[in-house]
Amino acid sequence: MGRTFVVVGGDAAGMSAASKAKRDDPDLEVVVFEKGEWVSYGACGLPYYVKGEIESLDDLVTLTPEEFAERGIDLRQHHEVVSIDREEQTVTAVHDGERVEQSYDDLLVATGARAVVPPIEGADLDGVFTLHSMNSAATVKRALSPPAAVPDDEFQEGYGAQVHEYLAAANPDSVGIIGGGYIGLEMAEAFEARDMDVHVFEMLPHVLAPFGEDVAEKVEGHLESNGVGVSLDTMVERIVGEDGRVTGIEADGETVPVDVVLVATGVAPNAELAGENGVELGETGAIATDEYGRTNDEHVFAGGDCAEARNAVTGEPDYVPLALTANRAGRAIGQTVTGTPTPVGDIVGTAVVKVFDLEAARTGVIDHEIAEAAGYDPVSQVIEQGSRAHYYPGGSPITVRLTADRESGRLLGASMVGREGVAQRINTVATALHAEMTVGEVEYLDLAYAPPFGPVWDPVLTAAKVLHGKLD
Amino acid sequence: MGRTFVVVGGDAAGMSAASKAKRDDPDLEVVVFEKGEWVSYGACGLPYYVKGEIESLDDLVTLTPEEFAERGIDLRQHHEVVSIDREEQTVTAVHDGERVEQSYDDLLVATGARAVVPPIEGADLDGVFTLHSMNSAATVKRALSPPAAVPDDEFQEGYGAQVHEYLAAANPDSVGIIGGGYIGLEMAEAFEARDMDVHVFEMLPHVLAPFGEDVAEKVEGHLESNGVGVSLDTMVERIVGEDGRVTGIEADGETVPVDVVLVATGVAPNAELAGENGVELGETGAIATDEYGRTNDEHVFAGGDCAEARNAVTGEPDYVPLALTANRAGRAIGQTVTGTPTPVGDIVGTAVVKVFDLEAARTGVIDHEIAEAAGYDPVSQVIEQGSRAHYYPGGSPITVRLTADRESGRLLGASMVGREGVAQRINTVATALHAEMTVGEVEYLDLAYAPPFGPVWDPVLTAAKVLHGKLD
Repeated sequence: MGRTFVVVGGDAAGMSAASKAKRDDPDLEVVVFEKGEWVSYGACGLPYYVKGEIESLDDLVTLTPEEFAERGIDLRQHHEVVSIDREEQTVTAVHDGERVEQSYDDLLVATGARAVVPPIEGADLDGVFTLHSMNSAATVKRALSPPAAVPDDEFQEGYGAQVHEYLAAANPDSVGIIGGGYIGLEMAEAFEARDMDVHVFEMLPHVLAPFGEDVAEKVEGHLESNGVGVSLDTMVERIVGEDGRVTGIEADGETVPVDVVLVATGVAPNAELAGENGVELGETGAIATDEYGRTNDEHVFAGGDCAEARNAVTGEPDYVPLALTANRAGRAIGQTVTGTPTPVGDIVGTAVVKVFDLEAARTGVIDHEIAEAAGYDPVSQVIEQGSRAHYYPGGSPITVRLTADRESGRLLGASMVGREGVAQRINTVATALHAEMTVGEVEYLDLAYAPPFGPVWDPVLTAAKVLHGKLD
Repeated sequence: MGRTFVVVGGDAAGMSAASKAKRDDPDLEVVVFEKGEWVSYGACGLPYYVKGEIESLDDLVTLTPEEFAERGIDLRQHHEVVSIDREEQTVTAVHDGERVEQSYDDLLVATGARAVVPPIEGADLDGVFTLHSMNSAATVKRALSPPAAVPDDEFQEGYGAQVHEYLAAANPDSVGIIGGGYIGLEMAEAFEARDMDVHVFEMLPHVLAPFGEDVAEKVEGHLESNGVGVSLDTMVERIVGEDGRVTGIEADGETVPVDVVLVATGVAPNAELAGENGVELGETGAIATDEYGRTNDEHVFAGGDCAEARNAVTGEPDYVPLALTANRAGRAIGQTVTGTPTPVGDIVGTAVVKVFDLEAARTGVIDHEIAEAAGYDPVSQVIEQGSRAHYYPGGSPITVRLTADRESGRLLGASMVGREGVAQRINTVATALHAEMTVGEVEYLDLAYAPPFGPVWDPVLTAAKVLHGKLD
């Protein structure tokens, strides 16, 4: 009898694993359970769908259910896996109220993450949204759009009622965003593009906390110059409503009137299915895995937004739910279960976000407390340099912050912000982090130079040069 | 008595060394001999000066002679060093016909490179130019410009007569460029921007030979779509003239009529001063140096466009005269002569060039013959991918070619071309080359992702993934 690989969750990690496993071993039976309708889609594109730059949710889909079927993958949508019997190696899914049992030889838990809504009074009012799934994006877009701008068939799970009520009312023209992370800021741009008044509330001293304050300050100034209100160090006390519907956000004793609210305060791993069935979770709350993505059960793997990964800088498990990590893990696990053991790869926490005309990026460990907890003695240096040769027209400043360990000189992390050349430039540092380079080694990298693309000493090299001098 | 550091040549390597040495040891006497007028300028900006995007040659100057004087550096312009007495540790310079002798404790030869003009019949005609020095750029620009567009004070060494003759004639409106390297193609863009008919003649099968044919073919198509004539595999037989002045270029038995000719067939190291005075040259013809930039004479260093550097991929001396290499070497040598021995750093031959709307880049060893000569068994893979997420508007294709060693999997080199994201992206590979990563390690780099800046799997990762599969 043939072997069976069961995957729970039909997005990045799950479908990458299913595809790779089926391709490498066509005799393997591959069954994917997805509790909803959508599979294999680019969730990172949702803000641009709301913004209007991407017309249809279908555009975000990488491969359709039909294409997976053609690959010989048994994809079962609207099947929610509710339990795992690790002894018997079976999972139980619920579909249309019926329970379905499925045995497995290897199991991948790829249940993703969900938007977290903190316990704020009024969070249950009509007009309070999150943005994480395809359906939530459709709901937000429809709530902002004139009737018929969003076709009915983009609604697949009964958001209709809530939305139709909005359509009966005037289109909202102001929004309060709770949370100044990636999603919050990408959505600020999306709402502004729709001519709305936008106000971001961040409870920490700065937006984009993982990017550090040097980057954050530039981003905050840029948001404001684009007409976005920014309240820092501001805890939202409650969402105010009338007749069950949002009318404002109360914070610092004042009420900012808004028509809708987006809660973008982060995500949490969907680790309950695993945890409740004896799969170990790590300290971060996500599923603990080894270098192959294997959990404490040798037949159970976990990958993507529900799982931890090893941080190459700290050497410790970390939880950074991002698309590439999920895709890599899925692919590697697909290889491992078909007989080619493949590590899922370390992460260094590289990320980039577009905020209006700025590119902000980060990689590695830049927070001194985190670096110290990992046993380093961190030293940081911030420099500002042009994005082009000083004489070449059209350049703009790039801010680079590098962090290294004083004793060893080992590079620990970087953040950057600027109007151009940042999104790719961060990868120079990410690569150096994987290679465990010292800041002195980075200083002598032979990087590309031409006047339209940077100064002779790339800003990364300049930052390394100055930081190296500081360590001596 | 204090020590003296003498530098021959006042551009990137020379002035970097002088500045760094004086800063690190203010008691050191630092004397720089420069045979011309201009010091410390960005030669890479010259095509954009001719194009008109940079108004004045002064804009290309990083630091003026006055600023070097303020730093306490004894800069002597119009002093041509004609001999080195290594026994006595003196150099002899000629200034206004007078010989000046100067002793040194340490000497840096930073004599740069010069444009090479091959022995083509007609190369001595009026209207045949090269582009390497500030003065040559001023000459070209003036030859193309209406009277008074180039101020007199940009002429410092008597090019006036030749140019005034042109001004008396009609402005040239066609140009033949001999050589399809960086300078040739940057100048094609510059001439086109001045509404000239441009024709490039390349004797090899492709332009941009060090970038490989995959990149070259895209560049050639792009040149043609911008109205530039491109003749490949074409040896120029002679430059045709009338009354001592260019009228055309004869190649393949036909004559293309042109008003001016730019010879851009490459550069050669100015290694004669060193070679004639017993300093060893390497096989490339440039000055041989150790990892500190020291020549066979422990008191004589060499750096910049006249010197070799070690290629990290081949492990052998290499000659790649580029700006960053010169700046790095100068700075390191400045530190070494003041008591902090500092390696000049390996090169990997990273380069980028803008050709109209394309960015073309390369790093490491991509030519299979060169890789084989270095003891590798090269395998290459070309992929094409979008510069943005597939659903994000405005993206365009990026072509990436990666080369690795079959046995070890070690990454050897890469080339890329596209409309955006190439100039910085090449540095990911350059960094991986310095770290001697395998293609499997590159495949699992944690690189930045956001829809406006690339696909989830960065083109570098995709190329590594496919190439890795090919090696197994």
